[in-house]
Amino acid sequence: MKNKMIHLDQTDLPTSWFNPLPLFEEPLDPPLNPKTEEPMKPEELKEIFPEGSIDLEMSQKREVDVPEEVSEKYKIWRPTPLIRATNLERELGTPARIYFKYEGASPPGSHKPNTALPQTYYAKQEGLKTLTTETGAGQWGSALSFTTSQFGINAKVFMVRVSYDQKPFRKSMIQSWNGDIVPSPSEETEVGRSFLKENPDTDGTLGMAISEAIELATKSEDAKYSLGSVLNHVLIHQSILGKETRLQLEKDGQKPDVLIGCTGGGSNFGGLVLPFLKDIIEEGRDIKLIGAEATACPTLTKGNQEYDYADSGEMTPLMNMYTLGHDFVPDGIHAGGLRYHGMAPIVGRLNSKGYMTARAFEQTDIFEAALTFANTEGYIPAPESAHAIKAAIDEAKKAKEENEEKNIVFNYSGHGNFDMAAYDDYLAGKLEDVYHEGPEQ
Amino acid sequence: MKNKMIHLDQTDLPTSWFNPLPLFEEPLDPPLNPKTEEPMKPEELKEIFPEGSIDLEMSQKREVDVPEEVSEKYKIWRPTPLIRATNLERELGTPARIYFKYEGASPPGSHKPNTALPQTYYAKQEGLKTLTTETGAGQWGSALSFTTSQFGINAKVFMVRVSYDQKPFRKSMIQSWNGDIVPSPSEETEVGRSFLKENPDTDGTLGMAISEAIELATKSEDAKYSLGSVLNHVLIHQSILGKETRLQLEKDGQKPDVLIGCTGGGSNFGGLVLPFLKDIIEEGRDIKLIGAEATACPTLTKGNQEYDYADSGEMTPLMNMYTLGHDFVPDGIHAGGLRYHGMAPIVGRLNSKGYMTARAFEQTDIFEAALTFANTEGYIPAPESAHAIKAAIDEAKKAKEENEEKNIVFNYSGHGNFDMAAYDDYLAGKLEDVYHEGPEQ
Repeated sequence: MKNKMIHLDQTDLPTSWFNPLPLFEEPLDPPLNPKTEEPMKPEELKEIFPEGSIDLEMSQKREVDVPEEVSEKYKIWRPTPLIRATNLERELGTPARIYFKYEGASPPGSHKPNTALPQTYYAKQEGLKTLTTETGAGQWGSALSFTTSQFGINAKVFMVRVSYDQKPFRKSMIQSWNGDIVPSPSEETEVGRSFLKENPDTDGTLGMAISEAIELATKSEDAKYSLGSVLNHVLIHQSILGKETRLQLEKDGQKPDVLIGCTGGGSNFGGLVLPFLKDIIEEGRDIKLIGAEATACPTLTKGNQEYDYADSGEMTPLMNMYTLGHDFVPDGIHAGGLRYHGMAPIVGRLNSKGYMTARAFEQTDIFEAALTFANTEGYIPAPESAHAIKAAIDEAKKAKEENEEKNIVFNYSGHGNFDMAAYDDYLAGKLEDVYHEGPEQ
Repeated sequence: MKNKMIHLDQTDLPTSWFNPLPLFEEPLDPPLNPKTEEPMKPEELKEIFPEGSIDLEMSQKREVDVPEEVSEKYKIWRPTPLIRATNLERELGTPARIYFKYEGASPPGSHKPNTALPQTYYAKQEGLKTLTTETGAGQWGSALSFTTSQFGINAKVFMVRVSYDQKPFRKSMIQSWNGDIVPSPSEETEVGRSFLKENPDTDGTLGMAISEAIELATKSEDAKYSLGSVLNHVLIHQSILGKETRLQLEKDGQKPDVLIGCTGGGSNFGGLVLPFLKDIIEEGRDIKLIGAEATACPTLTKGNQEYDYADSGEMTPLMNMYTLGHDFVPDGIHAGGLRYHGMAPIVGRLNSKGYMTARAFEQTDIFEAALTFANTEGYIPAPESAHAIKAAIDEAKKAKEENEEKNIVFNYSGHGNFDMAAYDDYLAGKLEDVYHEGPEQ
């Protein structure tokens, strides 16, 4: 084994994103206006989101050119390495090859800037001065602050109050990139003030923060709203990581048999698998796709597929998606990025058509997998990514039982440097497993 | 510009370290026994340090083979990227090319495992079960825990008590890699108990922690002590990063005119510059070497060059080095890795012979430089590395004034993910500049 880490030169950085929409026999259901419940026109959506995002959201072009200015900025950290987990393979005694795509290499430490960057570019092109957004644990807020600092516009980040107080270092990171961050609910919006009037001591929720960010965007002439997951354009942007993975596997002379990503809103899983859908759908290649979610928030394994809001404030368009209900409040597990009631419609389509399998994992099991990984491959993962690791280890063990030389590829969506308190809790035996039975079927 | 990030394939990972000792006309002064003040024999040093470390410490071989097992483990994260800071160049309007070697890519986030790995390998080869060490802010302790977890031996880390309490996340990281960490002074050693008896509420110092680690190592049959900077073998191990840099610059068709590293104990600066010393000393090439230190701990700019202890407990060998005095207690600046009274003898030789220049920087200036960097190149650096960034920016501005197309290369020794509280303080205007006048000359 000569190369454990498979690099691409920047001259091989993919110049297009992959759009899976033309592959689907039936189109996805349109988003509905939250007030009229009628299908939303692009113009309506463009009142909320940057125009470039909505153009892509509805595009039927299979390969979408990456704008040159975006490519130049991607080169700050992309292509990221694909790493063969040889030490983990040895530890497990598996005949499988295990690869991981190391998205922890970006400045904010996750895959999130893959979409924050083009979204910011569209906003800049359109002459906007501000992008508003919400953030829970801070991954998305820091990604958007990083990219807005690159294009010289403002990020206005509403951070769930309890996270703002408990996780001060993501806040510091956002401020280091000149992001404007306020704890939500805040006094800065009407909806924020109403939440506070109702309950002055509220911890806040992601739903409240989304409502505030959307209000500010729709009321301001030079601001729009940016979402970090769920929507088609987000997953399409993320396909850059899957395209790189494809090239890197080719460089290593391999093809994937299993592709794994954790699933919160679906963007890192989507990014990894989209460029392989043509092999599966058009060429009938047998690639197993696994979405790894948390038992505390089992959107794919226990949710219903139906129209629902993306926020608890009922301000976002209605999407037809797997959902636990927009008023679902998940327990406080450490994988904050997986605590979301909904799921990307593209991922929903893959699940309902049987192209993928979803698995839900318990908190203690994913930290056990994370430490197995840290003590073999060295890197300490984010709890979200540890779900993908757990699924990969399970698959590698199965390959051992069946004596099959498979290629298992997972997305290491982010590093755990800002999650060490969670590791403390696990090592101290303080973590509890949390299950949720899901809504009535 | 096609490649902003210059990768090496792992097949190009250097297979030898560079040892500068044969280049020096007069040999370095030997370490002295702290009790007898007589030159120490290798056998004496091997009672404290792993044998392989001491064999290298005194080697006169110019190119030293990297053991294959070490190379295999280096491949977990090496070669690290060399990145051209094009966005920073544009911001400064400089004709200079600025490159940085991104050592933040390692699992613990700094250059430290470059030497922790071979030291652990030697210990394992020798049949040791434990390496003891001290750590201040936690960078070195986490590096050694990472590498001992790779070779299946134990790390026993004495962490300065005030850091142990204030920086819990490095502790969590060490424990995630199975490291055994205790706040120092502790009840576990005689010297620790004596420190506690004297002052039960002491915050601890690095000097006390070193004394405890050495006591434990010398009293135990299957344990030895490991040091993360200062000594020759440490700098020689670090030369791997300079060798990679050399290859990467060649790949980009360039040669360095200025090489910059921050200087705490001297290992990251040494690692960068050692492989270029042959060009300077043997071929007379004009390469400017700049060591960037803190005004609060101005070892090279204001220290004396004389025999001194490496610890405050007077248990280590005496080294002839630049020092502020082993009882010097630096102010609590945020760049914890630069708060050390001494300096690697190899770096001292470069300084006293005029091969390098040392510059001391104020705390507020280095954070200003760090944020300029974060908002152009994206990455948020450790405060230590920010000293190198400040020096690089100064050089780039000078190149602009003089309209010179220079190649400026600095070592980005570590990321700032565990230093966000320092950024908070800076952004809140809470940082004060600290100067130290140095000892009497």
